[in-house]
Amino acid sequence: MSQYSDLEKAINTLVTQFHAASADKAPTLKSDEFKGLLSSQLPNLVKGIGSDQGMGEILQKMGVGDGEGISFKHFWNLIQSLASSQYSNLSSQIGSSCKCILL
Amino acid sequence: MSQYSDLEKAINTLVTQFHAASADKAPTLKSDEFKGLLSSQLPNLVKGIGSDQGMGEILQKMGVGDGEGISFKHFWNLIQSLASSQYSNLSSQIGSSCKCILL
Repeated sequence: MSQYSDLEKAINTLVTQFHAASADKAPTLKSDEFKGLLSSQLPNLVKGIGSDQGMGEILQKMGVGDGEGISFKHFWNLIQSLASSQYSNLSSQIGSSCKCILL
Repeated sequence: MSQYSDLEKAINTLVTQFHAASADKAPTLKSDEFKGLLSSQLPNLVKGIGSDQGMGEILQKMGVGDGEGISFKHFWNLIQSLASSQYSNLSSQIGSSCKCILL
């Protein structure tokens, strides 16, 4: 991977992490697989939501219907909202000590 | 950064690379700054576009108007399209040797 830039590696990580979360390499993740992905990769987010109700809200925000599998597009909606929040945080910190806090 | 997961670091990289490309930490990148970002961070993409015309096409696809600065949202459109392509590539490679080729 050393011939790739940091940005390319970052995109690669987003894609492969989603893929890796599917046990049977299906195009969508089952609810439990997605929870596993969040727990291992976005623990700060999981702490924030905690309950089953919180999980339901997050799935709804991602555009996932009841009982529907989680597609890469759904996952991408989440990544986009996390990146946007972080970008806003970072922008408001310019001039102060920029700690690049995630979430 | 070691307390962060790979996925969190990846999101962080996307955000900070965009920020780092702006010399004066403005909310949008100037055309030259954006070219610099592409050259250093997405060299495979730059090879693909090469000419000024190619650059114009990419900016258009990102939703950037003539003479407009490049915002994080514009940049995100590009990242999204790269991630989607890579996801499709990866999905079609399942079962074969999965090399995770970018672009």
